Amino acid sequence: MSARVLSGKELAASIRSEATGQAAGLAAAGTPAKLAVVVATADESSAWYVRSIARAAEKSGIVCEIVDLGAEADPALIRDRLASLSADDTVHGIILQTPLPQGARLEDLAGAIAFEKDVDGANPLSLGRLAAGLPAFAPATAEAVVAILDHHGIDLAGRHVAVVGRSTVVGKPAAHLLLDRNATVTVCHSRTRDLAAVTSAADVVVAAVGRAGLITAEHVRPGAVVVDVGTNPTEDGGLVGDVDAVAVADSAGALTPVPGGVGPVTTALLLRHTVHAADRARTR
Amino acid sequence: MSARVLSGKELAASIRSEATGQAAGLAAAGTPAKLAVVVATADESSAWYVRSIARAAEKSGIVCEIVDLGAEADPALIRDRLASLSADDTVHGIILQTPLPQGARLEDLAGAIAFEKDVDGANPLSLGRLAAGLPAFAPATAEAVVAILDHHGIDLAGRHVAVVGRSTVVGKPAAHLLLDRNATVTVCHSRTRDLAAVTSAADVVVAAVGRAGLITAEHVRPGAVVVDVGTNPTEDGGLVGDVDAVAVADSAGALTPVPGGVGPVTTALLLRHTVHAADRARTR
Repeated sequence: MSARVLSGKELAASIRSEATGQAAGLAAAGTPAKLAVVVATADESSAWYVRSIARAAEKSGIVCEIVDLGAEADPALIRDRLASLSADDTVHGIILQTPLPQGARLEDLAGAIAFEKDVDGANPLSLGRLAAGLPAFAPATAEAVVAILDHHGIDLAGRHVAVVGRSTVVGKPAAHLLLDRNATVTVCHSRTRDLAAVTSAADVVVAAVGRAGLITAEHVRPGAVVVDVGTNPTEDGGLVGDVDAVAVADSAGALTPVPGGVGPVTTALLLRHTVHAADRARTR
Repeated sequence: MSARVLSGKELAASIRSEATGQAAGLAAAGTPAKLAVVVATADESSAWYVRSIARAAEKSGIVCEIVDLGAEADPALIRDRLASLSADDTVHGIILQTPLPQGARLEDLAGAIAFEKDVDGANPLSLGRLAAGLPAFAPATAEAVVAILDHHGIDLAGRHVAVVGRSTVVGKPAAHLLLDRNATVTVCHSRTRDLAAVTSAADVVVAAVGRAGLITAEHVRPGAVVVDVGTNPTEDGGLVGDVDAVAVADSAGALTPVPGGVGPVTTALLLRHTVHAADRARTR
């Protein structure tokens, strides 16, 4: 048996194509969609990611402004900039890129992103509304987990999903989105005793820790679906996930690849969120 | 073997006593702590609960105003009233009592409660901040679950906790508080397949559904700790939990009683939150 590959490319292309159409409409109406990405790091893989978002945005007809505040930026400066972008009518989506300078916390600063422009769901209000079942942008990565499963026809209702990782940007919001789909959800983390015993009881395993090779064959029940959210840079400039794909390929029923799985869907969802935010701003 | 009884009475008394002391200090300073409870229902068990909060508040030297808007109150009226109480400097804590009139949702209306007065953690911003690890008042019932386990010396780190119920007021915030204590957390609900199999794999079972007798012996692993959040009125005017206490008494290692378990701790925590809010308002 060999795991079915749950590619994200086709889904990402379809979301991008829809966003491109909407962006064209907005531009024609004289209100081009605009995304601002606030950066305060010299981290290379972060820079690579920001460039890939900017390229994807521009390809879709979305204006993308990279606001680089430098790796030494003071939290107060970052907060002020988020507030001024929040007040700027020409900006529809705002992302605060991580990592942040020492002493600055995403959860804390993201409260300065206007809720309706919070296209990556970083403002705690967005997370709370998501958890409460109210409209809000979900963190794109968390939403991509559910979107890729939907796209491949994997039903979640009543199934047991183990989410490995409890971050505010992926693990926790993914848990809420999965609960909303009527999955039974277990959140595991670094302090979980006998991780393999917990994850191998699940129908679906979502790995969102950021540690290459964390999930191996013993963590996955035969036939289970594995969603790999990890994007760990390799020494040769490549990218690997949190799942040892070779090790689980024989037993898993299906697996999202890295790269080409959750990643492209995440970027596409950021674009979708931005055009939706722009569209709502126009009709307000 | 017979389950140890995890009473909440002693803990509640100690929290109330501390709150009483702080309330006296606030009153002496000319800024008495004040709690407003907004009611828009004719539900009897709700009325009973509101009276018990009011009595407990007054006993602790906290002013309690019950704002009864009637069972037919329009959501817009409720929202307006929450906003005016939020703007009232003499009010430090605000609770919106459930059930609400048809068409009104707690999650939606509670956004009108000022975050710093949201002593029952009903505003989605409070829930989001809680999930993000930022300071916020937790819903008192959810906090009571962790507090009662702490009080009885039950360690949560690395242990597997099954939370049965995914409500915004108990199940979800309890899951976040338990994660914050390094527990591995599984959230189960009405759509969970084979609930007994899931809960009997856990070291601790938290029942927060509101259905009498839902949790029986087959749901509890021998020696496991059971926290019963349910408060279901009986025909003879009594109160029973979600756990069939007789059925699990032999196998469970410990069990919170109903009444006298989570309930009194919840009320005490509401008082603590109110004096803390009043104290912060004074020093701001």
